[in-house]
Amino acid sequence: MEPFAPLVLQRPVIRLIDQTLLPHEERWRTISTVGELQEAIRALRVRGAPLLGIAGAAGMALAAETGDGGNASLARAAAAIGSTRPTAVELASGAAAALEAALEVADSAARLDCLWAFASRYIARRIEEDLRLARLGAELLPPGAAVLTHCNTGVLATGGIGTALGVIRVAWESGRLSHWYATETRPLLQGARLTAWELRQAGIPSSLLPDTAAASLIAAGNVHAVITGADRIAANGDTANKVGTYGLAAVAARHGVPFYIAAPTSTIDFACFVGASIPIEMRDPAEVGGFAEVRWSPAGVGAYNPAFDVTPAGLIAAIITEAGVAAAPYSVSLPGLRGMP
Amino acid sequence: MEPFAPLVLQRPVIRLIDQTLLPHEERWRTISTVGELQEAIRALRVRGAPLLGIAGAAGMALAAETGDGGNASLARAAAAIGSTRPTAVELASGAAAALEAALEVADSAARLDCLWAFASRYIARRIEEDLRLARLGAELLPPGAAVLTHCNTGVLATGGIGTALGVIRVAWESGRLSHWYATETRPLLQGARLTAWELRQAGIPSSLLPDTAAASLIAAGNVHAVITGADRIAANGDTANKVGTYGLAAVAARHGVPFYIAAPTSTIDFACFVGASIPIEMRDPAEVGGFAEVRWSPAGVGAYNPAFDVTPAGLIAAIITEAGVAAAPYSVSLPGLRGMP
Repeated sequence: MEPFAPLVLQRPVIRLIDQTLLPHEERWRTISTVGELQEAIRALRVRGAPLLGIAGAAGMALAAETGDGGNASLARAAAAIGSTRPTAVELASGAAAALEAALEVADSAARLDCLWAFASRYIARRIEEDLRLARLGAELLPPGAAVLTHCNTGVLATGGIGTALGVIRVAWESGRLSHWYATETRPLLQGARLTAWELRQAGIPSSLLPDTAAASLIAAGNVHAVITGADRIAANGDTANKVGTYGLAAVAARHGVPFYIAAPTSTIDFACFVGASIPIEMRDPAEVGGFAEVRWSPAGVGAYNPAFDVTPAGLIAAIITEAGVAAAPYSVSLPGLRGMP
Repeated sequence: MEPFAPLVLQRPVIRLIDQTLLPHEERWRTISTVGELQEAIRALRVRGAPLLGIAGAAGMALAAETGDGGNASLARAAAAIGSTRPTAVELASGAAAALEAALEVADSAARLDCLWAFASRYIARRIEEDLRLARLGAELLPPGAAVLTHCNTGVLATGGIGTALGVIRVAWESGRLSHWYATETRPLLQGARLTAWELRQAGIPSSLLPDTAAASLIAAGNVHAVITGADRIAANGDTANKVGTYGLAAVAARHGVPFYIAAPTSTIDFACFVGASIPIEMRDPAEVGGFAEVRWSPAGVGAYNPAFDVTPAGLIAAIITEAGVAAAPYSVSLPGLRGMP
């Protein structure tokens, strides 16, 4: 059986599973143009920082497929894709890396081949890097560990085994894991919908919890590590991730429970010196007070709805990457990771 | 216009607004027996610690109305009502206080009168105490304060002006409040449904937020005080309240934002020395991963679903009651509140 992949290259198009409809419906969408891809990214049909890197790279192949493949049109496409969502650095860097590869090829047919091949290699690298990251992360866990995760960081978020969920899967396979706790992750419920969909298949003893219950679960001593992914890591280690991450890290610190970030080195943005420079996407107020077609709150109530928050480096016990595990001071350890610039 | 009351005495029955259907439907239910009241309490048709005190007292009138009114049957009713939900102390203490009053009356018809009169006085006292508490609390806020609340602590929770929401209303009326932030309060969404229903009517500039967004809102310096209610306050000041409260208090402390408990002195349980002795109700796992008839998570996923958590006294800047504002050390200040034993 082919391993599941949430985004598949089928030149001249890409196909992706619509993550807004999971877990109840597994509907695949065909994406033929950059505009269709941007709609899918904005609507979160495709999401997860590392998978957005794949989407960014694959989007450049679509741009060459549907445009003239010239320098100007490809550069415009890379800028358009990169700005579709502001926080996850890999969306822009995936598109930019594909653009850079294409610009080295003069012939337009060869350029098209180059972009599809680049996207394919990007996916393969994602799978490899996830596995390396997961093995390094699993070694950090004590035997019998109960681990808490936030949002979705599995195959649906990366295209590989996952980042934080990859660590959990490898820890389970090697007998280190006792229990997996997953938050619902309001407002878009990536934990309740996507992580629960993955955890049901994983066969690991697990519990879903309201975001509000995480603090008392940690306080009760029932969690031995909190592990999340990242959307962008600043050079000093401050990390933007799904809204709610910072609160988990703050409570974990109070109780001496290690809080880990699991993310590929491509998530590190050395151009962002500190977390305060990371742009935080504000989303539609309608996502609050309801879900999908269901409204809980009365009409006319305002909302505050940032998609991400920033966890200060001081709360992060380690940043687990495919190139090694970095600890404080991150401004030294992050550039020192194997293979980093 | 009569002020709104969520629970109304209409001897020989009580009527209550079904809070599980708000804000979309304002359906009133007639409650004629202790059994019907217990069902309504368990299903959270009537909820909020102070309002549960009213329900406890009113339930004793129903018990006398439908039973023989003898000592044994009334004592059984008080025990049954008090044990319907374990955490909010006022449910049991409201019923016990009504029982005590009834036992001083020998004649069974007079006893019935006594119990209805007791419930009526209990409601009147709730309204008065809420007002006194709200005025004391509002004085603690700096001018132009933006305040964050959790769960619902307004008229729907107390029968009066509310505890934390009472403070907010009085602060708004006296020109001290700039903005009111309210969490959704998963899993049962008392903030998104009930507080939003009250705040829409209050005309105060306000925003609803996912529980996950509270930490970064506080970190951004946008909140000048966090105020919640309480379900039970231990003698040392440790406080059980809606799950999620502890996480808010922990983050507020990190940022030097005062975290206040607003609750009547009837919420203090001097028989509970510390928070660890407060029983925490675990609720149906089906409340997680969905809401009402809608499921987000796939079937067969386990859940962790405590209804409350405990905030340690050390995180509480003050406990605001109708009898005064108590500060640490609470084991000294709580017994010293005016009118306390």
